[in-house]
Amino acid sequence: MIASAPKPDWIAVDWGTTRLRAWAMGAAGNVLGHAESNDGMGKLDKEAFEAALLRIAGDWLGKGAVGVVACGMVGSRQGWVEAPYRSTPCPACPTGAVMAPARDPRISVHVIPGIKQSSPADVMRGEETQIAGYLAGNPEFDGVICLPGTHSKWVRVKAGEITGFRTAMTGEMFETLGRHSVLRHTVGESGWDSSAFEEAISNSLAHPEKLAVALFSLRAEALLQGLAKEAARARLSGLLVGLELADARDLWLSRPVALIGAPALTLIYSDALSAQGVAPAVADGATMTRAGLAAARALLRETT
Amino acid sequence: MIASAPKPDWIAVDWGTTRLRAWAMGAAGNVLGHAESNDGMGKLDKEAFEAALLRIAGDWLGKGAVGVVACGMVGSRQGWVEAPYRSTPCPACPTGAVMAPARDPRISVHVIPGIKQSSPADVMRGEETQIAGYLAGNPEFDGVICLPGTHSKWVRVKAGEITGFRTAMTGEMFETLGRHSVLRHTVGESGWDSSAFEEAISNSLAHPEKLAVALFSLRAEALLQGLAKEAARARLSGLLVGLELADARDLWLSRPVALIGAPALTLIYSDALSAQGVAPAVADGATMTRAGLAAARALLRETT
Repeated sequence: MIASAPKPDWIAVDWGTTRLRAWAMGAAGNVLGHAESNDGMGKLDKEAFEAALLRIAGDWLGKGAVGVVACGMVGSRQGWVEAPYRSTPCPACPTGAVMAPARDPRISVHVIPGIKQSSPADVMRGEETQIAGYLAGNPEFDGVICLPGTHSKWVRVKAGEITGFRTAMTGEMFETLGRHSVLRHTVGESGWDSSAFEEAISNSLAHPEKLAVALFSLRAEALLQGLAKEAARARLSGLLVGLELADARDLWLSRPVALIGAPALTLIYSDALSAQGVAPAVADGATMTRAGLAAARALLRETT
Repeated sequence: MIASAPKPDWIAVDWGTTRLRAWAMGAAGNVLGHAESNDGMGKLDKEAFEAALLRIAGDWLGKGAVGVVACGMVGSRQGWVEAPYRSTPCPACPTGAVMAPARDPRISVHVIPGIKQSSPADVMRGEETQIAGYLAGNPEFDGVICLPGTHSKWVRVKAGEITGFRTAMTGEMFETLGRHSVLRHTVGESGWDSSAFEEAISNSLAHPEKLAVALFSLRAEALLQGLAKEAARARLSGLLVGLELADARDLWLSRPVALIGAPALTLIYSDALSAQGVAPAVADGATMTRAGLAAARALLRETT
């Protein structure tokens, strides 16, 4: 006789535009299982969300109802259920979760709202949960949290509140310019050159206005001087991360910085900030997502 | 009996990556006919160039051989014949044309070389011909020539020489980000909002480091405040043209500026520069291309 997998106490879900990730969580906050798929919000009709979740998490379900807490684009207007944005300034703890219309009696699903800022206009969905997770472990944090990615966030946190934030389209500029412009011939799909990255960071910090010229110089150096594809890739990244750091200088220059994200990405930002004399704390993105979802679940249990 | 079209004295050709344009030229520099196609360099094998030219210009040919002078990517390594770059500093007059291996005895084809700069690395192919055309009519010009476009050029010209230049990937950033990033939902395909453009120009001139944040704000304002698609389009353009102008400030601030390009594009740059107190001269791109090709033809006739 084979022992069946342990049933989870609850299920944590990170549901973005392109990916769906779920974790079977034990009562002690331990991870019993993990599953993911490409059923991101971007390709699902409203009616398709429940089935997509059951496809990856169905094996974890037993007879009783299990609580599911989800964050990310699943709560957008085009998602499973709209979880209206909270507005800055607001508590970092993830309040305001909205119930999704699941029909399967084995699941009870709550979706965490994103946060909006009216001036300058800005939005986040998903990062607020990672911030809540970080603050659950660092409740006294007073500084700026950077969440690098497709749309990098710089979030000012003080006294348990998110007081404001800004978003730089850094990751998306890297992907878009590297794949769809003339630079696609010049920039490799992989590989790295640390000194090219560091030099580009310095250049963008000193001369952010040079970006569009520095981008074309990648192409020209490839044509005339055989610039290597991995150096071009690192330089493209450095130019864009450097631009982001130039803009965020007022945020990181004089207060503690925490980085939350995938290790490969936080390493890049950590190196770039270290070269500027900043020693950021670093936290893993998926771990912070689960911690934030756990904080939301604890709030839900208090209030129901 | 129908009178046949007058046979051209020579044929002017502007052969870029995506478009092939040809003009039947009279002996007095007048245009007798015009034809164009999508047979750009980018999709032609070496053997296909001659047929592509004959498809659009064949009707202009008679019994005798006609001279053809071409500029643009047709002279690149992947083109019909490689016309090796001249190096800055160099005379603006279009020397160094290379003969293409045409087999049809009715045509004799010369291709004008591009210009390269070794430090900072940079290249142009096609713009050198427009510059030669502008200088043919303004031989004493001492200033900077801006040729806005996919890859905008800023070219320092003095005493009939090109002393240096730089390229900003402005037009390509506009197309790539507007079509392939999340901004594709936000930025219209057409329409314009002059005040949004002007404000974005000022913002980029004052704070070029804000580019990646200002780009995401287009998306956020569309989500939260219903930013109109034509305003978003003008602001995207203004942010990028403003970045280009911020970098080129040392060039346009204290010397005469000439703009060469398509009228819709030079109008945008002229407006942006005027707001900064600069009154650029403006010349039509196609007219300057023909004038530069005519200058190259005159040089070829002197030397053969």
